[in-house]
Amino acid sequence: MSEHMNGASPHPLPRTREAALALDHDDPLARSRSLFELPAGLIYLDGNSLGALPRATTARLQQMACAEWGRHLVGAWNDAGWVNLPHRIADKICQLVGAQPGELVVTDSTSINTYKVLHAALGLARRDRPRQRVIISERDNFPTDLYIAHAVAEAHGCVLVLAEAPEQIPDLLERGDAAVLLLTHVNYRTGRMHDMAALNRLAQRHQTFTVWDLAHSAGAVPVDLNGSGSDFAVGCGYKYLNGGPGAPAFVWVHARLADRCHQPLPGWFGHMDPFAFSPAYQPAAGSRRFLCGTPPLLSMAALECGVDTLLAAGDFTALRQKSIALTSLFIDEVERRCAGHGLTLVTPRDPAARGSQVCFSHPEGGYPIMQALIARGVVGDFRAPGILRFGFAPLYTRYTDAWDAAAELADVLATNAWRDARYARRGAVT
Amino acid sequence: MSEHMNGASPHPLPRTREAALALDHDDPLARSRSLFELPAGLIYLDGNSLGALPRATTARLQQMACAEWGRHLVGAWNDAGWVNLPHRIADKICQLVGAQPGELVVTDSTSINTYKVLHAALGLARRDRPRQRVIISERDNFPTDLYIAHAVAEAHGCVLVLAEAPEQIPDLLERGDAAVLLLTHVNYRTGRMHDMAALNRLAQRHQTFTVWDLAHSAGAVPVDLNGSGSDFAVGCGYKYLNGGPGAPAFVWVHARLADRCHQPLPGWFGHMDPFAFSPAYQPAAGSRRFLCGTPPLLSMAALECGVDTLLAAGDFTALRQKSIALTSLFIDEVERRCAGHGLTLVTPRDPAARGSQVCFSHPEGGYPIMQALIARGVVGDFRAPGILRFGFAPLYTRYTDAWDAAAELADVLATNAWRDARYARRGAVT
Repeated sequence: MSEHMNGASPHPLPRTREAALALDHDDPLARSRSLFELPAGLIYLDGNSLGALPRATTARLQQMACAEWGRHLVGAWNDAGWVNLPHRIADKICQLVGAQPGELVVTDSTSINTYKVLHAALGLARRDRPRQRVIISERDNFPTDLYIAHAVAEAHGCVLVLAEAPEQIPDLLERGDAAVLLLTHVNYRTGRMHDMAALNRLAQRHQTFTVWDLAHSAGAVPVDLNGSGSDFAVGCGYKYLNGGPGAPAFVWVHARLADRCHQPLPGWFGHMDPFAFSPAYQPAAGSRRFLCGTPPLLSMAALECGVDTLLAAGDFTALRQKSIALTSLFIDEVERRCAGHGLTLVTPRDPAARGSQVCFSHPEGGYPIMQALIARGVVGDFRAPGILRFGFAPLYTRYTDAWDAAAELADVLATNAWRDARYARRGAVT
Repeated sequence: MSEHMNGASPHPLPRTREAALALDHDDPLARSRSLFELPAGLIYLDGNSLGALPRATTARLQQMACAEWGRHLVGAWNDAGWVNLPHRIADKICQLVGAQPGELVVTDSTSINTYKVLHAALGLARRDRPRQRVIISERDNFPTDLYIAHAVAEAHGCVLVLAEAPEQIPDLLERGDAAVLLLTHVNYRTGRMHDMAALNRLAQRHQTFTVWDLAHSAGAVPVDLNGSGSDFAVGCGYKYLNGGPGAPAFVWVHARLADRCHQPLPGWFGHMDPFAFSPAYQPAAGSRRFLCGTPPLLSMAALECGVDTLLAAGDFTALRQKSIALTSLFIDEVERRCAGHGLTLVTPRDPAARGSQVCFSHPEGGYPIMQALIARGVVGDFRAPGILRFGFAPLYTRYTDAWDAAAELADVLATNAWRDARYARRGAVT
């Protein structure tokens, strides 16, 4: 998936529902939608939280349980190829993020992988450049990334410095004391997308390692880890990869670094020779050392179905074009229809600077407006404080979904439907 | 599951196949076997590596995929109770290990949980008793436990000291410099079971925390974490709990310690208020702070089926009695039939000192003998160096399985079938 076509919209946006319907009709990605189980009547705009269910997944789970586990029992590790399953999925994900086969592993959760990678990056940096004692991130990064970064910085006697806005990041890098720059490529709350290549260049100039969290990027926007000069990355399996709830996550390490990395969670799956059962740890070559314990295979099997569904779409340029068209259409329609109702666009207006989601804030109504929408079958989500978040997974979201969602939102606002008591927030307001 | 009946055998062992068949016929646990899918003609003695498939699991996976994920999508976290699923399973596992509801969490892998718990234990010990700088374990412990222990010891400026034999452990404790004693309750390779209560008492006398790895205990032998005075424990979901390949693992922390624990992997699921998305980490109360990222729910769902199947057996005393009878029968029959063929019993002869497995070593034939057995439909496994390992999951293993496996092993040895070239080890000998 190359970075070209990052910002261009392919054709004029529809100005009527009929025009949106015509775009759906002619959509080369319409076949992709048919590969998913999606409830009739639902407009699902939360694939950035949990991707939809590929039709293939249920049968594959059945197969792994009955025909593999049930029939071969422990022998399935060899007979059914379980031992290679994580690597097979990993090599498929490589195609989505600009990595070479063997450079990436599928394992554990994004949180735990962030921990491993930050430790590894900080370990390398501290050995070669001991004066660089800072991890730079953003205050608005996904909280777990910050919890982990804080913990790892502390363990290495370093400090975590947070940019208050993305524009501060270059200044922080200029200080020259940063060992690692940890960023989520597409912000989970705003949808803002960093310029990965530009930040990598800047970081490299200051000998700062970059660690990219691709949770809201992989499968949604073009990512070229090698081409953009990245050092480390982690990513999530259950959002745009459609791997199912809590699907395993991934780790990528640049090939020039992997063999030098020391990761803090040495487990038998990351050992050079797991079945030697040797009492001394010897890391496997390359990124396989980032594996730890036995992988949760049923969740892995579902992840493979999700990734396959994405790869079946084939044309990643078309995917990005559609994503931009969907988000642009939604922004335009919401702003046209909802003017004066207090919504503020949080996501960048420039398509090149946003991922595949659109967020609006509302001073008092973030939570109840989303509840009212969900009650009408338009599913986005709410993120504190006051943010309405709409994800547009281009693989299965239609132009009419974007159109109808905007119309529904306008109606919820115009009729004050969201002020109904049943949509009020229960429990602590955050 | 109390520790009584730990060593007693319930009735005389069968001395003929007919007598074994009669025991199967009268077995109150026969119903438990019917709750599993087991291939006809296979004698499966490797449930200590991967437990068998409960009949309920496939339908449950289907339900989670189609009716929950497919129909409710992200809403299933609430509508289908996903958010409570790990806690529901955890409270069920409590019943198997002598823990109170709320004291245990299901999460991540055994390796990663060992890392969390060792860090937490060492953190507490180092704060209160900074002179205690040693982690004691055994050289024969499961390798990952040692890799992790070594890594954690190093991170805290401590050292890992390994007992060469279990008998050395009291002496090592007497030195008074141990912060933590890390042991696998039932050894993965020998089946030897430690006296948990006695070691806990001794450790407590020296203000040493105990960390028990229950990978080969939970669901197989009586465990009473609270009653025996344990401090920390971890355990595995895919062996005797029958949770499926790579099923999530668990962590238990004594209630008096949990709130003081600092664990090194702070993730949003272990946060006091996960949906506040606060940039500062505040650990949840009690053992929930040992959670990290989003759990792999499909694998969790399968784990619940496995645990349910165990709980359905109800009578844990009967389970232990049957386990002892099966392992005793197998030892007796193998020794009677195979005398002079070079097998040496590795597992303790005293039933009170062994788990639910039996191991024999053979000077040259460990690997090929097991391959020849597997080719005849008797599935155990091989563990370097030279060990034939047979697990007897009392939930679904029959007396005739133990009888027939011994007869088959005797035949493989008597006929030299294992010397056939097709059973020779390919690749590196370890």
